[in-house]
Amino acid sequence: MSELLILITNDDGYSSKGIKALINAVKNLGKILIVAPDSPQSGMGHAISVNKPIRCYKTNFFDSVEAYCCTGTPVDCIKMGLYLLKDKKPDLILSGINHGSNVSTNILYSGTMSAAVEGALSGIPSVGYSLTDYSDDADFQYSEKIVQIISKKVIKEGLKKGTCLNVNIPNIKENQIKGIKVCRQGRAFWDDTFDHRKDPLGKDYYWLTGSFSSKEQALDTDINYLENNYVTIVPTQFDMTCHDSVDELKKWKL
Amino acid sequence: MSELLILITNDDGYSSKGIKALINAVKNLGKILIVAPDSPQSGMGHAISVNKPIRCYKTNFFDSVEAYCCTGTPVDCIKMGLYLLKDKKPDLILSGINHGSNVSTNILYSGTMSAAVEGALSGIPSVGYSLTDYSDDADFQYSEKIVQIISKKVIKEGLKKGTCLNVNIPNIKENQIKGIKVCRQGRAFWDDTFDHRKDPLGKDYYWLTGSFSSKEQALDTDINYLENNYVTIVPTQFDMTCHDSVDELKKWKL
Repeated sequence: MSELLILITNDDGYSSKGIKALINAVKNLGKILIVAPDSPQSGMGHAISVNKPIRCYKTNFFDSVEAYCCTGTPVDCIKMGLYLLKDKKPDLILSGINHGSNVSTNILYSGTMSAAVEGALSGIPSVGYSLTDYSDDADFQYSEKIVQIISKKVIKEGLKKGTCLNVNIPNIKENQIKGIKVCRQGRAFWDDTFDHRKDPLGKDYYWLTGSFSSKEQALDTDINYLENNYVTIVPTQFDMTCHDSVDELKKWKL
Repeated sequence: MSELLILITNDDGYSSKGIKALINAVKNLGKILIVAPDSPQSGMGHAISVNKPIRCYKTNFFDSVEAYCCTGTPVDCIKMGLYLLKDKKPDLILSGINHGSNVSTNILYSGTMSAAVEGALSGIPSVGYSLTDYSDDADFQYSEKIVQIISKKVIKEGLKKGTCLNVNIPNIKENQIKGIKVCRQGRAFWDDTFDHRKDPLGKDYYWLTGSFSSKEQALDTDINYLENNYVTIVPTQFDMTCHDSVDELKKWKL
Protein backbone atom coordinates (compact mmCIF):
# COMPACT_ATOMS: atom_id res chain seq x y z
CA MET A 1 0.00 0.00 0.00
CA SER A 2 1.36 3.42 -0.97
CA GLU A 3 1.80 6.14 1.59
CA LEU A 4 -1.36 8.00 2.59
CA LEU A 5 -1.72 11.64 1.60
CA ILE A 6 -3.37 13.98 4.12
CA LEU A 7 -4.43 17.56 3.35
CA ILE A 8 -4.72 19.81 6.40
CA THR A 9 -6.20 23.25 7.00
CA ASN A 10 -7.89 25.22 9.80
CA ASP A 11 -9.61 28.54 10.33
CA ASP A 12 -7.57 30.02 13.16
CA GLY A 13 -4.59 30.51 10.83
CA TYR A 14 -1.35 28.64 10.21
CA SER A 15 0.38 29.92 13.34
CA SER A 16 -2.29 28.74 15.80
CA LYS A 17 -1.58 26.06 18.38
CA GLY A 18 -4.48 23.90 17.22
CA ILE A 19 -3.16 23.14 13.74
CA LYS A 20 0.23 22.21 15.22
CA ALA A 21 -1.51 19.75 17.52
CA LEU A 22 -3.43 18.28 14.58
CA ILE A 23 -0.23 17.82 12.57
CA ASN A 24 1.52 16.31 15.56
CA ALA A 25 -1.30 13.81 15.99
CA VAL A 26 -1.27 12.49 12.40
CA LYS A 27 2.30 13.03 11.20
CA ASN A 28 3.03 9.31 11.44
CA LEU A 29 -0.04 8.29 9.44
CA GLY A 30 1.16 9.51 6.04
CA LYS A 31 2.51 12.39 3.97
CA ILE A 32 1.03 15.76 4.93
CA LEU A 33 0.29 18.86 2.86
CA ILE A 34 -0.75 21.96 4.80
CA VAL A 35 -2.60 24.84 3.15
CA ALA A 36 -3.77 27.15 5.91
CA PRO A 37 -5.03 30.74 6.12
CA ASP A 38 -2.35 33.35 6.80
CA SER A 39 -4.68 35.12 9.27
CA PRO A 40 -7.62 34.13 11.50
CA GLN A 41 -10.73 33.18 9.49
CA SER A 42 -13.19 32.28 12.21
CA GLY A 43 -16.82 32.70 11.22
CA MET A 44 -16.02 32.62 7.50
CA GLY A 45 -18.43 29.72 6.94
CA HIS A 46 -18.38 28.39 3.39
CA ALA A 47 -17.12 31.68 1.91
CA ILE A 48 -14.89 31.56 -1.16
CA SER A 49 -12.91 34.31 -2.86
CA VAL A 50 -15.02 35.29 -5.86
CA ASN A 51 -14.33 39.00 -6.15
CA LYS A 52 -10.65 39.08 -5.26
CA PRO A 53 -7.56 37.05 -6.15
CA ILE A 54 -5.62 35.17 -3.50
CA ARG A 55 -1.96 34.74 -2.67
CA CYS A 56 -0.48 31.40 -1.69
CA TYR A 57 3.14 31.09 -0.63
CA LYS A 58 5.33 28.35 0.74
CA THR A 59 6.29 28.52 4.39
CA ASN A 60 8.93 26.71 6.44
CA PHE A 61 6.93 27.25 9.60
CA PHE A 62 6.21 23.52 9.99
CA ASP A 63 9.83 22.27 9.72
CA SER A 64 9.90 19.23 7.46
CA VAL A 65 6.20 19.28 6.50
CA GLU A 66 5.26 20.87 3.14
CA ALA A 67 3.13 23.90 3.93
CA TYR A 68 1.53 26.91 2.26
CA CYS A 69 -0.02 30.05 3.66
CA CYS A 70 -3.04 31.35 1.80
CA THR A 71 -4.75 34.73 1.96
CA GLY A 72 -8.12 33.09 1.23
CA THR A 73 -10.78 31.44 3.35
CA PRO A 74 -10.59 27.89 4.79
CA VAL A 75 -12.68 26.62 1.83
CA ASP A 76 -10.29 28.41 -0.56
CA CYS A 77 -7.45 26.57 1.22
CA ILE A 78 -9.04 23.18 0.48
CA LYS A 79 -9.58 24.15 -3.17
CA MET A 80 -5.97 25.41 -3.36
CA GLY A 81 -4.65 22.22 -1.73
CA LEU A 82 -6.45 20.08 -4.31
CA TYR A 83 -5.12 22.36 -7.08
CA LEU A 84 -1.54 22.08 -5.83
CA LEU A 85 -1.82 18.27 -5.69
CA LYS A 86 -2.90 18.17 -9.37
CA ASP A 87 -3.76 14.56 -10.27
CA LYS A 88 -3.06 13.19 -6.80
CA LYS A 89 -6.10 13.09 -4.56
CA PRO A 90 -5.64 13.20 -0.79
CA ASP A 91 -6.84 10.12 1.09
CA LEU A 92 -7.99 12.27 3.97
CA ILE A 93 -8.75 15.94 4.65
CA LEU A 94 -8.46 17.21 8.23
CA SER A 95 -9.41 20.62 9.56
CA GLY A 96 -8.63 22.12 12.97
CA ILE A 97 -8.05 21.60 15.75
CA ASN A 98 -10.34 24.59 16.24
CA HIS A 99 -9.95 26.81 19.29
CA GLY A 100 -13.60 26.67 20.40
CA SER A 101 -16.47 24.25 19.86
CA ASN A 102 -18.45 23.87 16.64
CA VAL A 103 -21.55 22.03 17.77
CA SER A 104 -25.10 22.44 16.48
CA THR A 105 -25.84 25.19 13.96
CA ASN A 106 -22.34 26.60 14.43
CA ILE A 107 -21.43 24.24 11.62
CA LEU A 108 -22.89 26.88 9.26
CA TYR A 109 -20.69 29.71 10.55
CA SER A 110 -17.55 27.68 11.15
CA GLY A 111 -14.64 27.96 8.72
CA THR A 112 -13.17 24.79 10.24
CA MET A 113 -16.25 22.73 9.49
CA SER A 114 -16.90 24.35 6.11
CA ALA A 115 -13.42 23.19 5.06
CA ALA A 116 -14.40 19.64 6.06
CA VAL A 117 -17.72 19.96 4.19
CA GLU A 118 -15.76 21.15 1.14
CA GLY A 119 -13.71 17.97 1.48
CA ALA A 120 -16.94 15.95 1.47
CA LEU A 121 -18.09 17.85 -1.65
CA SER A 122 -14.83 16.73 -3.28
CA GLY A 123 -15.61 13.12 -2.39
CA ILE A 124 -12.74 12.81 0.08
CA PRO A 125 -13.20 11.51 3.66
CA SER A 126 -12.90 14.59 5.83
CA VAL A 127 -12.98 15.44 9.52
CA GLY A 128 -13.22 18.75 11.36
CA TYR A 129 -11.89 18.76 14.95
CA SER A 130 -12.74 21.33 17.61
CA LEU A 131 -11.85 21.73 21.30
CA THR A 132 -14.15 23.72 23.59
CA ASP A 133 -11.43 26.17 24.57
CA TYR A 134 -11.20 29.51 22.75
CA SER A 135 -7.90 30.56 24.34
CA ASP A 136 -4.77 30.87 22.21
CA ASP A 137 -2.83 28.62 24.56
CA ALA A 138 -5.49 25.86 24.88
CA ASP A 139 -4.18 22.46 25.96
CA PHE A 140 -4.53 20.05 23.04
CA GLN A 141 -2.79 17.05 24.63
CA TYR A 142 -5.88 14.90 25.05
CA SER A 143 -7.32 16.20 21.76
CA GLU A 144 -4.28 14.80 19.94
CA LYS A 145 -5.16 11.32 21.19
CA ILE A 146 -8.75 11.73 20.00
CA VAL A 147 -7.57 12.98 16.60
CA GLN A 148 -5.36 9.90 16.28
CA ILE A 149 -8.10 7.45 17.27
CA ILE A 150 -10.78 8.91 14.98
CA SER A 151 -8.50 9.67 12.02
CA LYS A 152 -7.13 6.10 12.06
CA LYS A 153 -10.67 4.75 12.19
CA VAL A 154 -11.75 6.90 9.23
CA ILE A 155 -8.74 5.71 7.23
CA LYS A 156 -9.62 2.08 8.05
CA GLU A 157 -13.41 2.21 7.61
CA GLY A 158 -13.83 5.10 5.17
CA LEU A 159 -16.87 7.40 5.23
CA LYS A 160 -20.07 7.32 3.22
CA LYS A 161 -19.47 9.31 0.00
CA GLY A 162 -20.42 12.96 0.42
CA THR A 163 -20.09 12.99 4.20
CA CYS A 164 -17.58 14.27 6.73
CA LEU A 165 -17.36 14.20 10.51
CA ASN A 166 -17.84 17.05 12.96
CA VAL A 167 -15.83 16.11 16.08
CA ASN A 168 -16.04 18.19 19.26
CA ILE A 169 -13.87 17.57 22.30
CA PRO A 170 -14.77 18.84 25.78
CA ASN A 171 -12.14 20.91 27.59
CA ILE A 172 -11.83 18.79 30.73
CA LYS A 173 -9.25 16.47 32.25
CA GLU A 174 -8.78 13.18 30.41
CA ASN A 175 -10.03 11.11 33.35
CA GLN A 176 -13.32 13.08 33.35
CA ILE A 177 -14.12 12.18 29.73
CA LYS A 178 -16.98 9.68 29.68
CA GLY A 179 -16.45 8.39 26.13
CA ILE A 180 -17.18 9.10 22.47
CA LYS A 181 -20.76 9.50 21.19
CA VAL A 182 -22.00 9.43 17.61
CA CYS A 183 -25.05 11.70 17.53
CA ARG A 184 -26.96 14.33 15.60
CA GLN A 185 -26.59 18.09 15.27
CA GLY A 186 -28.37 19.88 18.13
CA ARG A 187 -30.94 22.60 17.59
CA ALA A 188 -29.65 25.84 19.04
CA PHE A 189 -29.28 29.41 17.91
CA TRP A 190 -27.29 32.56 18.50
CA ASP A 191 -29.12 35.22 20.42
CA ASP A 192 -27.34 38.02 18.58
CA THR A 193 -26.87 41.63 19.36
CA PHE A 194 -24.45 44.35 18.33
CA ASP A 195 -22.10 46.29 20.55
CA HIS A 196 -22.68 49.82 19.21
CA ARG A 197 -19.68 52.14 19.55
CA LYS A 198 -18.43 55.50 18.32
CA ASP A 199 -15.05 55.81 16.61
CA PRO A 200 -12.68 58.71 17.48
CA LEU A 201 -14.45 60.81 14.82
CA GLY A 202 -17.82 60.20 16.43
CA LYS A 203 -19.06 57.85 13.73
CA ASP A 204 -20.98 54.65 14.49
CA TYR A 205 -19.56 51.14 14.24
CA TYR A 206 -20.78 47.77 15.49
CA TRP A 207 -19.30 44.55 16.85
CA LEU A 208 -21.43 41.45 16.35
CA THR A 209 -21.83 39.69 19.67
CA GLY A 210 -24.32 37.46 21.45
CA SER A 211 -24.82 34.27 23.38
CA PHE A 212 -25.49 30.75 22.18
CA SER A 213 -28.91 29.61 23.30
CA SER A 214 -29.28 25.85 23.69
CA LYS A 215 -32.46 25.45 25.70
CA GLU A 216 -34.78 22.46 25.19
CA GLN A 217 -31.96 20.20 24.07
CA ALA A 218 -32.77 16.60 23.14
CA LEU A 219 -30.61 13.86 24.62
CA ASP A 220 -29.15 12.51 21.38
CA THR A 221 -27.53 15.79 20.26
CA ASP A 222 -23.94 16.98 20.13
CA ILE A 223 -24.77 19.88 22.47
CA ASN A 224 -26.13 17.61 25.16
CA TYR A 225 -23.37 15.00 25.00
CA LEU A 226 -20.59 17.60 24.90
CA GLU A 227 -22.05 19.31 27.98
CA ASN A 228 -22.08 15.91 29.65
CA ASN A 229 -18.37 15.30 29.10
CA TYR A 230 -18.47 13.17 25.94
CA VAL A 231 -16.45 13.63 22.76
CA THR A 232 -19.10 14.01 20.03
CA ILE A 233 -19.08 12.87 16.39
CA VAL A 234 -21.79 14.13 14.03
CA PRO A 235 -21.73 12.60 10.52
CA THR A 236 -22.38 15.60 8.27
CA GLN A 237 -23.66 16.01 4.71
CA PHE A 238 -24.53 18.88 2.39
CA ASP A 239 -28.07 18.23 1.19
CA MET A 240 -30.05 21.06 2.79
CA THR A 241 -33.40 20.08 1.25
CA CYS A 242 -36.20 19.85 3.79
CA HIS A 243 -37.49 16.58 2.34
CA ASP A 244 -40.50 16.58 4.70
CA SER A 245 -41.72 19.81 3.12
CA VAL A 246 -41.42 18.83 -0.54
CA ASP A 247 -44.74 16.95 -0.69
CA GLU A 248 -46.45 19.54 1.49
CA LEU A 249 -45.44 22.41 -0.78
CA LYS A 250 -46.44 20.48 -3.90
CA LYS A 251 -50.04 20.97 -2.72
CA TRP A 252 -49.67 24.73 -3.11
CA LYS A 253 -51.55 25.94 -6.18
CA LEU A 254 -48.87 27.96 -7.95
CA MET B 1 -54.58 42.74 10.72
CA SER B 2 -51.58 45.05 11.18
CA GLU B 3 -49.29 45.87 8.29
CA LEU B 4 -46.75 43.20 7.37
CA LEU B 5 -43.07 43.87 7.97
CA ILE B 6 -40.61 42.60 5.36
CA LEU B 7 -36.82 42.58 5.82
CA ILE B 8 -34.85 42.54 2.57
CA THR B 9 -31.20 41.92 1.71
CA ASN B 10 -29.10 40.48 -1.12
CA ASP B 11 -25.48 39.61 -1.88
CA ASP B 12 -24.85 41.65 -5.02
CA GLY B 13 -24.95 44.88 -3.05
CA TYR B 14 -27.56 47.59 -2.48
CA SER B 15 -27.06 49.22 -5.87
CA SER B 16 -27.72 46.09 -7.95
CA LYS B 17 -30.69 45.81 -10.26
CA GLY B 18 -31.90 42.60 -8.63
CA ILE B 19 -32.68 44.05 -5.20
CA LYS B 20 -34.59 46.92 -6.85
CA ALA B 21 -36.70 44.37 -8.71
CA LEU B 22 -37.36 42.47 -5.46
CA ILE B 23 -38.48 45.66 -3.70
CA ASN B 24 -40.65 46.63 -6.65
CA ALA B 25 -42.34 43.23 -6.54
CA VAL B 26 -43.30 43.32 -2.85
CA LYS B 27 -43.64 47.02 -2.03
CA ASN B 28 -47.42 46.75 -1.91
CA LEU B 29 -47.40 43.77 0.44
CA GLY B 30 -46.25 45.61 3.58
CA LYS B 31 -43.65 47.86 5.20
CA ILE B 32 -40.13 47.20 3.99
CA LEU B 33 -36.78 47.49 5.75
CA ILE B 34 -33.68 47.07 3.57
CA VAL B 35 -30.29 46.21 5.05
CA ALA B 36 -28.00 45.36 2.16
CA PRO B 37 -24.23 45.03 1.65
CA ASP B 38 -22.48 48.19 0.44
CA SER B 39 -20.38 46.13 -1.99
CA PRO B 40 -20.75 42.81 -3.84
CA GLN B 41 -20.67 39.82 -1.46
CA SER B 42 -21.12 36.91 -3.86
CA GLY B 43 -19.66 33.64 -2.61
CA MET B 44 -19.63 34.81 1.01
CA GLY B 45 -21.73 31.82 2.09
CA HIS B 46 -22.73 31.93 5.75
CA ALA B 47 -19.77 34.14 6.74
CA ILE B 48 -20.22 36.59 9.61
CA SER B 49 -17.94 39.39 10.82
CA VAL B 50 -16.20 37.94 13.85
CA ASN B 51 -12.79 39.58 13.67
CA LYS B 52 -13.76 43.03 12.47
CA PRO B 53 -16.45 45.59 13.32
CA ILE B 54 -18.98 46.66 10.72
CA ARG B 55 -20.44 49.98 9.65
CA CYS B 56 -24.12 50.44 8.92
CA TYR B 57 -25.47 53.72 7.61
CA LYS B 58 -28.82 54.97 6.38
CA THR B 59 -29.21 55.55 2.65
CA ASN B 60 -31.82 57.41 0.59
CA PHE B 61 -31.03 55.27 -2.42
CA PHE B 62 -34.46 53.60 -2.34
CA ASP B 63 -36.60 56.77 -2.23
CA SER B 64 -39.33 56.32 0.34
CA VAL B 65 -38.23 52.88 1.61
CA GLU B 66 -36.18 52.75 4.84
CA ALA B 67 -32.78 51.39 3.90
CA TYR B 68 -29.31 50.80 5.35
CA CYS B 69 -26.00 49.95 3.73
CA CYS B 70 -23.80 47.59 5.68
CA THR B 71 -20.10 46.78 5.30
CA GLY B 72 -20.73 43.22 6.48
CA THR B 73 -21.81 40.01 4.80
CA PRO B 74 -25.39 39.13 3.76
CA VAL B 75 -25.80 37.13 7.00
CA ASP B 76 -24.51 40.15 8.97
CA CYS B 77 -27.19 42.20 7.17
CA ILE B 78 -29.95 39.89 8.42
CA LYS B 79 -28.56 40.03 11.96
CA MET B 80 -28.30 43.84 11.70
CA GLY B 81 -31.85 44.12 10.34
CA LEU B 82 -33.21 42.12 13.29
CA TYR B 83 -31.12 44.28 15.66
CA LEU B 84 -32.46 47.52 14.15
CA LEU B 85 -36.03 46.27 14.46
CA LYS B 86 -35.54 45.62 18.19
CA ASP B 87 -38.70 43.99 19.57
CA LYS B 88 -40.51 43.91 16.24
CA LYS B 89 -40.00 40.71 14.28
CA PRO B 90 -40.34 40.78 10.51
CA ASP B 91 -43.14 38.64 9.08
CA LEU B 92 -41.02 37.75 6.09
CA ILE B 93 -37.35 37.87 5.07
CA LEU B 94 -36.51 38.09 1.37
CA SER B 95 -33.09 37.89 -0.26
CA GLY B 96 -32.13 38.63 -3.85
CA ILE B 97 -33.04 38.75 -6.62
CA ASN B 98 -29.61 37.26 -7.25
CA HIS B 99 -27.85 37.86 -10.53
CA GLY B 100 -27.11 34.18 -11.32
CA SER B 101 -28.62 30.87 -10.26
CA ASN B 102 -28.19 29.24 -6.86
CA VAL B 103 -29.24 25.65 -7.51
CA SER B 104 -27.79 22.51 -5.98
CA THR B 105 -24.73 22.77 -3.72
CA ASN B 106 -24.36 26.45 -4.65
CA ILE B 107 -26.61 27.05 -1.68
CA LEU B 108 -23.49 26.56 0.49
CA TYR B 109 -21.46 29.25 -1.29
CA SER B 110 -24.31 31.69 -1.92
CA GLY B 111 -24.59 34.81 0.21
CA THR B 112 -28.15 35.26 -1.07
CA MET B 113 -29.26 31.86 0.16
CA SER B 114 -27.24 32.02 3.39
CA ALA B 115 -29.18 35.18 4.26
CA ALA B 116 -32.43 33.23 3.74
CA VAL B 117 -31.08 30.32 5.84
CA GLU B 118 -30.19 32.86 8.57
CA GLY B 119 -33.82 33.97 8.40
CA ALA B 120 -34.90 30.36 8.91
CA LEU B 121 -32.51 30.09 11.88
CA SER B 122 -34.30 33.11 13.35
CA GLY B 123 -37.64 31.35 12.95
CA ILE B 124 -38.92 33.76 10.29
CA PRO B 125 -40.37 32.60 6.94
CA SER B 126 -37.65 33.42 4.40
CA VAL B 127 -37.13 33.14 0.67
CA GLY B 128 -34.04 33.55 -1.50
CA TYR B 129 -34.69 34.43 -5.16
CA SER B 130 -32.23 33.98 -8.02
CA LEU B 131 -32.39 34.52 -11.78
CA THR B 132 -30.06 32.56 -14.08
CA ASP B 133 -28.52 35.68 -15.57
CA TYR B 134 -25.23 36.96 -14.16
CA SER B 135 -25.22 40.23 -16.12
CA ASP B 136 -25.56 43.54 -14.32
CA ASP B 137 -28.44 44.57 -16.56
CA ALA B 138 -30.40 41.31 -16.34
CA ASP B 139 -34.11 41.57 -17.16
CA PHE B 140 -36.08 40.93 -13.95
CA GLN B 141 -39.55 41.67 -15.33
CA TYR B 142 -40.86 38.10 -15.25
CA SER B 143 -38.93 37.43 -12.02
CA GLU B 144 -40.93 40.17 -10.31
CA LYS B 145 -44.15 38.31 -11.09
CA ILE B 146 -42.71 35.10 -9.66
CA VAL B 147 -41.53 36.93 -6.53
CA GLN B 148 -45.05 38.29 -6.05
CA ILE B 149 -46.76 34.94 -6.53
CA ILE B 150 -44.45 33.00 -4.20
CA SER B 151 -44.07 35.71 -1.55
CA LYS B 152 -47.87 36.10 -1.30
CA LYS B 153 -48.24 32.34 -0.98
CA VAL B 154 -45.63 32.19 1.79
CA ILE B 155 -47.41 35.00 3.66
CA LYS B 156 -50.72 33.13 3.33
CA GLU B 157 -49.57 29.57 4.07
CA GLY B 158 -46.47 30.16 6.20
CA LEU B 159 -43.47 27.84 6.15
CA LYS B 160 -42.52 24.97 8.41
CA LYS B 161 -40.49 26.42 11.33
CA GLY B 162 -36.77 26.38 10.58
CA THR B 163 -37.14 26.29 6.81
CA CYS B 164 -36.80 28.74 3.95
CA LEU B 165 -37.26 28.51 0.20
CA ASN B 166 -34.60 28.51 -2.50
CA VAL B 167 -36.29 29.85 -5.65
CA ASN B 168 -34.51 29.82 -9.02
CA ILE B 169 -35.94 31.41 -12.16
CA PRO B 170 -34.77 30.50 -15.68
CA ASN B 171 -33.65 33.34 -17.92
CA ILE B 172 -36.03 32.75 -20.81
CA LYS B 173 -39.08 34.46 -22.27
CA GLU B 174 -42.20 34.28 -20.13
CA ASN B 175 -44.11 32.21 -22.69
CA GLN B 176 -41.36 29.56 -22.63
CA ILE B 177 -41.70 28.97 -18.86
CA LYS B 178 -43.34 25.59 -18.30
CA GLY B 179 -44.40 26.17 -14.69
CA ILE B 180 -43.22 26.06 -11.09
CA LYS B 181 -41.79 22.87 -9.57
CA VAL B 182 -41.21 22.06 -5.90
CA CYS B 183 -38.23 19.72 -5.83
CA ARG B 184 -35.02 18.75 -4.05
CA GLN B 185 -31.47 20.11 -4.17
CA GLY B 186 -29.53 18.54 -7.06
CA ARG B 187 -26.20 16.81 -6.59
CA ALA B 188 -23.55 18.71 -8.50
CA PHE B 189 -20.12 20.10 -7.81
CA TRP B 190 -17.66 22.76 -8.91
CA ASP B 191 -14.79 21.45 -10.94
CA ASP B 192 -12.40 24.08 -9.59
CA THR B 193 -9.13 25.35 -10.80
CA PHE B 194 -7.06 28.49 -10.31
CA ASP B 195 -6.00 31.00 -12.93
CA HIS B 196 -2.35 31.49 -11.93
CA ARG B 197 -0.93 34.91 -12.78
CA LYS B 198 2.08 37.11 -12.04
CA ASP B 199 1.63 40.62 -10.67
CA PRO B 200 3.72 43.53 -12.05
CA LEU B 201 6.44 42.66 -9.49
CA GLY B 202 6.59 39.07 -10.75
CA LYS B 203 4.89 37.60 -7.70
CA ASP B 204 2.24 34.86 -7.93
CA TYR B 205 -1.47 35.35 -7.41
CA TYR B 206 -4.50 33.22 -8.18
CA TRP B 207 -8.10 33.66 -9.29
CA LEU B 208 -10.47 30.88 -8.27
CA THR B 209 -12.34 29.68 -11.33
CA GLY B 210 -13.99 26.53 -12.63
CA SER B 211 -17.09 25.02 -14.14
CA PHE B 212 -20.19 23.61 -12.50
CA SER B 213 -20.48 19.92 -13.21
CA SER B 214 -24.03 18.57 -13.13
CA LYS B 215 -23.75 15.19 -14.82
CA GLU B 216 -25.96 12.25 -13.82
CA GLN B 217 -28.78 14.50 -12.66
CA ALA B 218 -31.94 12.91 -11.26
CA LEU B 219 -35.29 14.14 -12.61
CA ASP B 220 -36.68 15.55 -9.37
CA THR B 221 -33.87 18.06 -8.77
CA ASP B 222 -33.65 21.83 -9.08
CA ILE B 223 -30.85 21.51 -11.66
CA ASN B 224 -32.92 19.32 -13.95
CA TYR B 225 -36.13 21.32 -13.73
CA LEU B 226 -34.35 24.67 -14.16
CA GLU B 227 -32.59 23.36 -17.27
CA ASN B 228 -36.00 22.29 -18.55
CA ASN B 229 -37.53 25.77 -18.23
CA TYR B 230 -39.27 25.47 -14.87
CA VAL B 231 -39.09 27.88 -11.94
CA THR B 232 -37.79 25.74 -9.05
CA ILE B 233 -38.58 25.87 -5.33
CA VAL B 234 -36.45 23.86 -2.90
CA PRO B 235 -37.63 23.90 0.73
CA THR B 236 -34.39 24.30 2.67
CA GLN B 237 -33.36 23.56 6.27
CA PHE B 238 -30.17 23.72 8.31
CA ASP B 239 -29.75 20.28 9.89
CA MET B 240 -26.65 18.93 8.16
CA THR B 241 -26.57 15.64 10.08
CA CYS B 242 -26.26 12.61 7.82
CA HIS B 243 -28.94 10.69 9.74
CA ASP B 244 -28.34 7.53 7.66
CA SER B 245 -24.78 7.36 8.96
CA VAL B 246 -25.49 7.81 12.68
CA ASP B 247 -26.41 4.17 13.32
CA GLU B 248 -23.66 2.93 11.01
CA LEU B 249 -20.95 4.89 12.85
CA LYS B 250 -22.29 3.81 16.24
CA LYS B 251 -20.99 0.33 15.33
CA TRP B 252 -17.43 1.67 15.26
CA LYS B 253 -15.51 0.53 18.31
CA LEU B 254 -14.11 3.79 19.61
